[in-house]
Amino acid sequence: MVKGATSVWVDKKVAFIGGDARQLEVIEKVAALGAEVIGYGFNGLKRSISGFSLVDEQCSAWEQLDVMVLPVTGVESGGQVLTKFQPGPIVLPDSFWARIPRGCLVFTGISKPYLKQLAENCQWRVISLMDLDEVAILNSIPSAEGAIQMAMENTPITIHGSNCAVLGFGRCGTTLARTLHGMGARVFAGARKAADLARIREMGLSEFPFSDLSLVLPKMDIVFNTVPTVLLTRQQLEQLSIHTVIIDIASSPGGVDYFSAEELGIKALLAPSLPGIVAPRTAGQILADTIVRLVEDLPDAED
Amino acid sequence: MVKGATSVWVDKKVAFIGGDARQLEVIEKVAALGAEVIGYGFNGLKRSISGFSLVDEQCSAWEQLDVMVLPVTGVESGGQVLTKFQPGPIVLPDSFWARIPRGCLVFTGISKPYLKQLAENCQWRVISLMDLDEVAILNSIPSAEGAIQMAMENTPITIHGSNCAVLGFGRCGTTLARTLHGMGARVFAGARKAADLARIREMGLSEFPFSDLSLVLPKMDIVFNTVPTVLLTRQQLEQLSIHTVIIDIASSPGGVDYFSAEELGIKALLAPSLPGIVAPRTAGQILADTIVRLVEDLPDAED
Amino acid sequence: MVKGATSVWVDKKVAFIGGDARQLEVIEKVAALGAEVIGYGFNGLKRSISGFSLVDEQCSAWEQLDVMVLPVTGVESGGQVLTKFQPGPIVLPDSFWARIPRGCLVFTGISKPYLKQLAENCQWRVISLMDLDEVAILNSIPSAEGAIQMAMENTPITIHGSNCAVLGFGRCGTTLARTLHGMGARVFAGARKAADLARIREMGLSEFPFSDLSLVLPKMDIVFNTVPTVLLTRQQLEQLSIHTVIIDIASSPGGVDYFSAEELGIKALLAPSLPGIVAPRTAGQILADTIVRLVEDLPDAED
Amino acid sequence: MVKGATSVWVDKKVAFIGGDARQLEVIEKVAALGAEVIGYGFNGLKRSISGFSLVDEQCSAWEQLDVMVLPVTGVESGGQVLTKFQPGPIVLPDSFWARIPRGCLVFTGISKPYLKQLAENCQWRVISLMDLDEVAILNSIPSAEGAIQMAMENTPITIHGSNCAVLGFGRCGTTLARTLHGMGARVFAGARKAADLARIREMGLSEFPFSDLSLVLPKMDIVFNTVPTVLLTRQQLEQLSIHTVIIDIASSPGGVDYFSAEELGIKALLAPSLPGIVAPRTAGQILADTIVRLVEDLPDAED
Repeated sequence: MVKGATSVWVDKKVAFIGGDARQLEVIEKVAALGAEVIGYGFNGLKRSISGFSLVDEQCSAWEQLDVMVLPVTGVESGGQVLTKFQPGPIVLPDSFWARIPRGCLVFTGISKPYLKQLAENCQWRVISLMDLDEVAILNSIPSAEGAIQMAMENTPITIHGSNCAVLGFGRCGTTLARTLHGMGARVFAGARKAADLARIREMGLSEFPFSDLSLVLPKMDIVFNTVPTVLLTRQQLEQLSIHTVIIDIASSPGGVDYFSAEELGIKALLAPSLPGIVAPRTAGQILADTIVRLVEDLPDAED
Repeated sequence: MVKGATSVWVDKKVAFIGGDARQLEVIEKVAALGAEVIGYGFNGLKRSISGFSLVDEQCSAWEQLDVMVLPVTGVESGGQVLTKFQPGPIVLPDSFWARIPRGCLVFTGISKPYLKQLAENCQWRVISLMDLDEVAILNSIPSAEGAIQMAMENTPITIHGSNCAVLGFGRCGTTLARTLHGMGARVFAGARKAADLARIREMGLSEFPFSDLSLVLPKMDIVFNTVPTVLLTRQQLEQLSIHTVIIDIASSPGGVDYFSAEELGIKALLAPSLPGIVAPRTAGQILADTIVRLVEDLPDAED
Repeated sequence: MVKGATSVWVDKKVAFIGGDARQLEVIEKVAALGAEVIGYGFNGLKRSISGFSLVDEQCSAWEQLDVMVLPVTGVESGGQVLTKFQPGPIVLPDSFWARIPRGCLVFTGISKPYLKQLAENCQWRVISLMDLDEVAILNSIPSAEGAIQMAMENTPITIHGSNCAVLGFGRCGTTLARTLHGMGARVFAGARKAADLARIREMGLSEFPFSDLSLVLPKMDIVFNTVPTVLLTRQQLEQLSIHTVIIDIASSPGGVDYFSAEELGIKALLAPSLPGIVAPRTAGQILADTIVRLVEDLPDAED
Repeated sequence: MVKGATSVWVDKKVAFIGGDARQLEVIEKVAALGAEVIGYGFNGLKRSISGFSLVDEQCSAWEQLDVMVLPVTGVESGGQVLTKFQPGPIVLPDSFWARIPRGCLVFTGISKPYLKQLAENCQWRVISLMDLDEVAILNSIPSAEGAIQMAMENTPITIHGSNCAVLGFGRCGTTLARTLHGMGARVFAGARKAADLARIREMGLSEFPFSDLSLVLPKMDIVFNTVPTVLLTRQQLEQLSIHTVIIDIASSPGGVDYFSAEELGIKALLAPSLPGIVAPRTAGQILADTIVRLVEDLPDAED
């Protein structure tokens, strides 16, 4: 559907520092669209990508960049950049960063304070991809599949026919609930807001307000939590069957009283950030699609 | 799931003025929960409902009301209330309304200026049900089914296997798209926001930005519009096959250039407000559930 | 996916007698594939179809036919053929039929005795399309949608959220149950065989053996019957709520004790053969696709 | 739904030899229904089950059995029975088996020749559960989930949005295709029979005849095979992208030319019998439900 995409990317100068497998999808995509693509920190990369060349810190190309794509974690304090393609982190001095032109469009997953400061000093335009609603929704797909895979690996029952609670009906909860329903689970989705409860019902799932949590828990086989506050307190955990498994995909430290869960003998697993682990290529394509779209939609992209 | 609901409703004095079939569901529900229920404007009602008695304007019960439920259209100027249960509208003078106690909880579908003024004068607490996100989402279900029924009645093809466009991905568009997908249609859902496009993709549908509308239209069998601006201009209508049928559920005057559609020989139907027509009992239950929940959740409901 | 289809159809001589709107889809398709197509009994047809010409009984083309397509009802006794395109039935004498070459491939919906005798006398190869599993399965789609449309038009509730029983899990029952589930109904599918009950459970529906019918009926809003024996006897009908609506799509005389249903005040509707009525174009395309495939797959089709 | 189930099971004498985790579900169920349950070969079982007692070979109860439940693999030659609950297989002499009464109902997964001979000699009624359509359909659920789990673990992409081929539309293929569709995959299901292709289309999936296999393969991300003949020959494998992963759940030796797949660098995995591995409790419940139903439905069960 992207018409004339090339016009925007041809001759754009794009650099990648890093990183992890997700960046490779972005590199392939923007190189295919006609950009001039350089990379730093990919010395261990086994395969070559057409249109992508590795450079060193001194390369003059850094001074002409239109776009720079950092790893998901961005730049840590001291100018550290985490990479999986060579041993140890990359450390780049301020004198290096200062050579990136002002106005450069810098993509990162998240913006830590050091990067924010750099961007302010250098007058870059930074886009934190993980803060975008669009990326969060698309990332909810690999997150949901990763959570389901964890549940499969940690229960002696099928998802089909099981009673699954999904706590929270935001971007991840919605996707998780739909996927479980599509696999034949009996889904009980809990939320706080009346509008969310209405949508859950419309989706053909069983809705419950969090105030009814203790009524729902006793019959659950699997509980998926997406809410980053401790809904699963000791009191709630005591409602669970000993066979229930909890998969917690709320960001660390999660939404479970893990100490009590262990004491009660209930298996509760705090999932790491799943997209990059369970489906790095899909996660990379999500970033690639979003970066391409954002650059094309920029008011000054055609300049 | 409603625990102790009775405690709230027992001895509550509730009046209904009006109205249409939807109110009957509410009457049955609150009467069953133990309220004292009176009605005015139901003289033509054929059946009796246990716990519900018809009164006249002079009845002293009006002065002790806790809750008053108006028809969906509320009160028109001059104190008119539309009813389907007796010939002609009801007209009630200000002297009548003034007897309803201050603080009374008044449910209406929509709040027209006359009702707003009354409420201010009388110090009622008015809740416009149709403005609630919860009600709008639940009403999207009968709306979607009504729209699909209209499409079935006006096409020589099945929904299954047809190419259906859904324009707009708000509360109605989401429900309509999901239902069509569940019936086996190929659904192309159009939206403006990147986050909506991401959610459409997650739902397994084909997403397109409105800027691609003219590319999508030529292959559509049915176009459902939910957006209350004229997206389907003459220029867009010219992209359609002569066999395409348009079902427009945006609020009047709809989102279609109807004059051009007729000139081009394209069948375009502006749906009326569907829930009360195609599924009055379901539409009534939605109102009943919401009213019951709101009264139970009120801070002072237990007083 | 049809490769080289033209080679088979080019120069094939194909005649249509009849008929109804479904045949028009077949005419359009085989004409587009390059066949020489003649028609008889279409005098009232308003539009012209490229490559299709109307002939009379004397036309010599009848003696060179490769394929003849009759209406769904075939040939009635006395050589009658039912048509909707001109007033009164067509009556063709044996002397006419005798001119159709032996070996001609004759498509009909159903084979009544008179046609069977003709085919034996004239040595035609007759294919009764409605007897083919493939056609029956594809026709189950418009049947299911027609049944759902009837339910929508005859109930004050939405399909979504309603309790629907589907009796029988053959070709129609399976499609109907899946579509209702896709629309958000709570589907209770009844069958006799353990394997069918297992498949129902796998599909995420609630299964019940017919022996439990009387336990299931009381809570149903809508009952769809597909079984051509009277499962819904007076005793079973007495289990139903007065609000329950029965849609019976079993072939006439259906599977309901209609006399008792009326006495008990229960709305029970015997659906006519739905595909040609609710979705004539889809029903015609099903026949067109099947006829095209069968001719192409014939061992001697390439001769 | 099981009414009066107890009447059939109370006082029934039931023995279990073996076995694996699936039997535990059956033991729990029939013990709960009131049967007298003995077991042999469960010495390593860690937990106790109410109503279940371990006996030795000499126990007189063997001579009064109504029902005997063997492990899925039944009895191997020489009277061997495989067990996971103690080290090494059990070996039971003919003199032992001869004490089981004639007419005893013997459940096994599969009937190997030695068991068949024993049954004939001893005049037992043997039911091979894995041969029952009902069990095969229900087992297709854990099989499908196991296959999907394998695909998740062996691809860097999500199931959602991926192109998945499912070869064969029998009991497993149907379940697998539906589950993948429910997860948001684009499913291309291949079959030979026109009726199966019609059903695939009705389910909202893309159908293709096996003759078009080579056209479909190039764009697939994952290929699931359920057909126990080598459809994926070297010639077909050459159509695949290097990134395609094949999951083969046809019974050993599977439906892939594994030698060629390795030479071509294509990852092809032959799945073991999945239900007992990925979901032993669900697999056990399937057996338990079926055994209970069969005993209850037996003509002489009430004697």
